[in-house]
Amino acid sequence: MASGSRKLKIGIIGFGPFAQFLAKTMIKQGHILTATSRSDHSQLCSQLNITFFRDIEAFLDAGNDIILICTSILSFSQVLRSIPFDHLKKPTLIAEVLSVKEYPRDLLLQVLPLEIDILCAHPMFGPGSGKDGWKGLTFVFDKVRITNEDTCSCFLHIFENEGCRMVEMSCEEHDKQAARSQFITHTVGRVLSEMEIQSTSLDTKGFQTLVNLKENTMKDSFDLYCGLFVHNRFAKQELKNLELALETVRQKLHHKSSDTL
Amino acid sequence: MASGSRKLKIGIIGFGPFAQFLAKTMIKQGHILTATSRSDHSQLCSQLNITFFRDIEAFLDAGNDIILICTSILSFSQVLRSIPFDHLKKPTLIAEVLSVKEYPRDLLLQVLPLEIDILCAHPMFGPGSGKDGWKGLTFVFDKVRITNEDTCSCFLHIFENEGCRMVEMSCEEHDKQAARSQFITHTVGRVLSEMEIQSTSLDTKGFQTLVNLKENTMKDSFDLYCGLFVHNRFAKQELKNLELALETVRQKLHHKSSDTL
Ligand SMILES: NC(=O)c1ccc[n+]([C@@H]2O[C@H](COP(=O)([O-])OP(=O)(O)OC[C@H]3O[C@@H](n4cnc5c(N)ncnc54)[C@H](OP(=O)(O)O)[C@@H]3O)[C@@H](O)[C@H]2O)c1
Ligand SMILES: NC(=O)c1ccc[n+]([C@@H]2O[C@H](COP(=O)([O-])OP(=O)(O)OC[C@H]3O[C@@H](n4cnc5c(N)ncnc54)[C@H](OP(=O)(O)O)[C@@H]3O)[C@@H](O)[C@H]2O)c1
Repeated sequence: MASGSRKLKIGIIGFGPFAQFLAKTMIKQGHILTATSRSDHSQLCSQLNITFFRDIEAFLDAGNDIILICTSILSFSQVLRSIPFDHLKKPTLIAEVLSVKEYPRDLLLQVLPLEIDILCAHPMFGPGSGKDGWKGLTFVFDKVRITNEDTCSCFLHIFENEGCRMVEMSCEEHDKQAARSQFITHTVGRVLSEMEIQSTSLDTKGFQTLVNLKENTMKDSFDLYCGLFVHNRFAKQELKNLELALETVRQKLHHKSSDTL
Repeated sequence: MASGSRKLKIGIIGFGPFAQFLAKTMIKQGHILTATSRSDHSQLCSQLNITFFRDIEAFLDAGNDIILICTSILSFSQVLRSIPFDHLKKPTLIAEVLSVKEYPRDLLLQVLPLEIDILCAHPMFGPGSGKDGWKGLTFVFDKVRITNEDTCSCFLHIFENEGCRMVEMSCEEHDKQAARSQFITHTVGRVLSEMEIQSTSLDTKGFQTLVNLKENTMKDSFDLYCGLFVHNRFAKQELKNLELALETVRQKLHHKSSDTL
């Protein structure tokens, strides 16, 4: 697989926690990274051997094969519209890893010139769940507009090489399933955090998993959680389903207890 | 520890899933078991080498050192009041393992003659979490009225021998903590079941733990869950706290999204 092992020049936009997490593995694989972000991450970048640009135009001039957008969901539109894509020197693949998929796909199709390729992806793991490697963890992607198959497949190889379970899926199908699974998981974690649940001296195994869930959820930013809700059109209904389910459980308890008392 | 290894004659009242689970380990340790229950469990009992009595008086006549009550929380009062304790031939330890503790303690103190000892206990595990042994799993107990320390400590040794973490705690403190931990865990599990959550092709690790939680919760009877609510005076408030926390999370989402849209 010659194409799979080509070294890529990858420019990252938005160098927050998730980008930093991805970057470590990309560097380990020998790819050459540059980054730009709202905040100044130049110190961390120099430690990681990544060229950090404060200036977006200089960043675009650097001749990357791939531009990887890792900004928050909520800032995506603003960030995207502020990128002067006409500065790109060559046909480039734009990939993004937001935790929602229809929303960035639609915006990218709207904003990007036709000669730019688009890959929408969602690694279903992060610094917590991926801390012991990515083996068996799910990587969802949709080849929204790919003319240069070679570059795209090189990028996907980054994840294949680490043993990810590669799932090709439409952005719509992703959002439907993620609203029922990931969004609900985050919601439960945030509800438990709001309740301030804590380990007790008599935890059951089940309760310990909830305490862990709470702690892992709270490592992600509220922006991320809010993005899952605002920019996934299936999330609102799932939140309603959760509320209804709690109401049903409450009613069943009250029925049964008025029977028994 | 001579007292720790004495073989006990243990009579179980209520031979449901949890009693069956406990009985297997007790038999493995060499104790001699008898049982009685609402339903006829004589076939299973004969396989396990347990004498099953359909008649409660014959069961009480059998001269047990300990009577272990394992009925559902909801039926406990009715079952307890139907036991003709005057049939007991000798001072006996009555132990119970309900998942709530103040409620059976109060009833036992009310109903039992003074010469009968009372141990209120709650093994914080079951057929699911305890399937690979009981090592490190929590056993909570309150020596409510113990005159014969020897028999009581022999009974506790059953759990110590298996490596349980022994936690002596008042029934009140148990109920307070269990309402915040175990009851909430069951509630979350039942809410997720009501939503019919299921593994998807893109589960995160966090979501997988919720699917497992749902499945483990639904292995316990609804009677058990309902008992946690009806007969733990702290549970009602914790259910309210859960509902409020969900409402708070919903409001935070709506605030933030009206800011961003
Ligand atoms: N964390 C995960 O486990 C995970 C997993 C899969 C996908 N994702 C996705 O990856 C992306 C990044 O996630 P994250 O965990 O790093 O946290 P996040 O809070 O979702 O995003 C943080 C990033 O967004 C940038 N940002 C935030 N507001 C901005 C604004 N107004 N203008 C410009 N940039 C802004 C930050 O820039 P500065 O750092 O420069 O301030 C930082 O790079 C998100 O889209 C998320 O959905 C995350
Ligand atoms: N499952 C666990 O993991 C676990 C852990 C710790 C403590 N506990 C406690 O252990 C006890 C038993 O739990 P479980 O899991 O076996 O299921 P359960 O549904 O709570 O109780 C089933 C038992 O209650 C008896 N029962 C139910 N209704 C009755 C009635 N109206 N009259 C007489 N007996 C009645 C059943 O008798 P028949 O079988 O004869 O019909 C069976 O023995 C409960 O108090 C529970 O809180 C359970």
